Amino acid sequence: MSAEVRPRRQRGDTPDTQRPECHPADVRAGLADLAHLGRAPSGGYRRFAWTREDAELRDWFTGEAKARGLDVAADRAGNLVAWWGDPDADGPGVVTGSHLDSVPDGGAFDGPLGVVSAFAALDVLRADGFRPARPLGVACFGDEEGARFGVACAGSRILTGALTAERAAGLADADGVSMAEAVTRAGHAPLGPDPEALGRIGTFVELHVEQGRALADLGRAIAVGTAIHPHGRWRLDLAGRADHAGTTRLVDRDDPMLAFARVVLAARAAAERHGAVATCGKVHVAPNGVNAIPSHVTAWLDARGEDAERVRAVVADVAGEAGAVTEESWTDRTPFDPALAARLSALLDDAPLLPTGAGHDAGVLAAAGVPTAMLYVRNPTGISHSPEEHAEDADCAAGVTALTAVLRELAGAAR
Amino acid sequence: MSAEVRPRRQRGDTPDTQRPECHPADVRAGLADLAHLGRAPSGGYRRFAWTREDAELRDWFTGEAKARGLDVAADRAGNLVAWWGDPDADGPGVVTGSHLDSVPDGGAFDGPLGVVSAFAALDVLRADGFRPARPLGVACFGDEEGARFGVACAGSRILTGALTAERAAGLADADGVSMAEAVTRAGHAPLGPDPEALGRIGTFVELHVEQGRALADLGRAIAVGTAIHPHGRWRLDLAGRADHAGTTRLVDRDDPMLAFARVVLAARAAAERHGAVATCGKVHVAPNGVNAIPSHVTAWLDARGEDAERVRAVVADVAGEAGAVTEESWTDRTPFDPALAARLSALLDDAPLLPTGAGHDAGVLAAAGVPTAMLYVRNPTGISHSPEEHAEDADCAAGVTALTAVLRELAGAAR
Repeated sequence: MSAEVRPRRQRGDTPDTQRPECHPADVRAGLADLAHLGRAPSGGYRRFAWTREDAELRDWFTGEAKARGLDVAADRAGNLVAWWGDPDADGPGVVTGSHLDSVPDGGAFDGPLGVVSAFAALDVLRADGFRPARPLGVACFGDEEGARFGVACAGSRILTGALTAERAAGLADADGVSMAEAVTRAGHAPLGPDPEALGRIGTFVELHVEQGRALADLGRAIAVGTAIHPHGRWRLDLAGRADHAGTTRLVDRDDPMLAFARVVLAARAAAERHGAVATCGKVHVAPNGVNAIPSHVTAWLDARGEDAERVRAVVADVAGEAGAVTEESWTDRTPFDPALAARLSALLDDAPLLPTGAGHDAGVLAAAGVPTAMLYVRNPTGISHSPEEHAEDADCAAGVTALTAVLRELAGAAR
Repeated sequence: MSAEVRPRRQRGDTPDTQRPECHPADVRAGLADLAHLGRAPSGGYRRFAWTREDAELRDWFTGEAKARGLDVAADRAGNLVAWWGDPDADGPGVVTGSHLDSVPDGGAFDGPLGVVSAFAALDVLRADGFRPARPLGVACFGDEEGARFGVACAGSRILTGALTAERAAGLADADGVSMAEAVTRAGHAPLGPDPEALGRIGTFVELHVEQGRALADLGRAIAVGTAIHPHGRWRLDLAGRADHAGTTRLVDRDDPMLAFARVVLAARAAAERHGAVATCGKVHVAPNGVNAIPSHVTAWLDARGEDAERVRAVVADVAGEAGAVTEESWTDRTPFDPALAARLSALLDDAPLLPTGAGHDAGVLAAAGVPTAMLYVRNPTGISHSPEEHAEDADCAAGVTALTAVLRELAGAAR
């Protein structure tokens, strides 16, 4: 079966001689639909996996799909794909999309831009009377940021089996709620790999706001991704001895906050030394009282670089300072399909080819053998994972136009 | 009126020729009554002002008073005094006691030892047939640790007016709940100074577990306090710019965690340099995500020393590193009544005289002009504000025996 796509915005004023295209206001309107969901008092977003906010975002996604007459398929790993066409009859399909969850106090573009642009691209194709030869899917991957349970790209990793169902189920949030419990509370069946759903994805293209300033520096609106840098997360457990801040002599103290401070500075110095990046963005202090020397500090290190050797060197230096580190995740360099990247760059006016330091579901699918590509949309400041994250309307429209061309190329017109 | 005191534990086996005394198991039994209240999974206590746990602790206090036929007077500042005798008719009285709230993950002795020992001392006096000439009171001060609203000794400070009712009402906890709101929710009238209640306290004696190792080093069980070192709390607001941990070049970062790390190490170095103590025990990181460069770090500095100059020098050095600090509280050196301290030391076998770096309600009352003394009970490790805080049964009993002698001396026998 092949559902008819009904665009939400009529473009009756498009002259017959001119191809329909994305209007600069369209993506902004799509993001505006989401603007109130999961917004924190800070102005940033707190959209975490398997929460009420997450359910509202999924409902929004399903509503957008239904408004276009698309069937939504939920896979066993908690991801959604809205299909235009039948991937079982005519697949595997060409899938685009991204995620709707956020980091704590994240911005409006990271994730949602890819989903909103995907629907907008389908609208343009439909308005143009295009009928794809291969089914087209719009994906909404679950739990991409890992903000709640600590493992990024959990939805795609569970789908491909890169994250086992057992390990995922046992991950706990800050309140001690396991992912298994959260998933059940959200009314979803236990998560697990889904080879059948994965098999329906013949090609994956993720559009994403750029998380750096390369495009701004180049004066271009759109880039094509080449690879994701190797990256990982490590936990540092710094033990001390709780004691009174006023009565304990300095020489009698075993204060893990001092160890933490040394680790933070050592991570920065090591990153400079080895030409990589390293960040201590999250820390948990027990008991976290003004007049109490902490008993324990737990810190997390995020380290990335162009090659694994640099990153490993940073982590080794930090481990030397901290005593020990525990690897919570590691993703080696993930190249996207080089032939596909070259083809898309050529299609998009020789769009620049860029690697990135950010992990994405696209990387997980690429590592699982799915031909995968990424499109980046210019971010004028490069700021990301922040309420200040931004992309201009014109660049968002250029992103949809590029994505439309890519989907048209990859899906092909039905005869 | 003068209520009869009924001891909870009968000592029918005490020979007439021997004065009753505190049995080593008595204080342990009293603390055991409290052991389950506000206990956290860590094994430490989380007994914060105006919470359900706080109400349970107050109920326990009132029950202990009632079991002894004592009237409990609640003052306007949220503190309780159980009176043996009538302070309005025969006062002002001699008051002993301490507090029942705790720091986060605090120990079992800091506060409760003083309250339990106060009741135990009254039991001993009663069993001995003692009838005080001056009324005797057992006090339970509210919100001594300041764990929830950030100001230590809030109950006694509001009582004396050292903390204005307006400022206290506006203090907020980590969830943004104001003290005014918390007090109302707990069913208490708005807090304010209470000169009448303060006037009933003619002399105050606080017994407290030592929060250092001086008595252990001296081989003595009991000390008498001389003064509280000057101490204060300062807040440091370290601003940065939220950004992506993987894609933001080191040179483009404005990472406030690095500033925090430098502050922690600067505070320690300054404390060593100036012969004081300084602690960064509490920190709040926003957004506190593994893959997000923080937008903001709020840190707190606790600094103390033998004299104000040393402490001010530490804070100035830290402010130089941090850019600015905000003083949240400051208490100058607080001497206890020197003649009273000498008298109690002589009474207690020349008990050693010790200053302390810890703030206490006793210091607030002393600063308000109430003749005040403190008794310290040996802490074998000196560890405090920790589940490992400890005092041996025999030392606790020695504390009650000392307190009994002090109350007998200060209240005098009725003719």
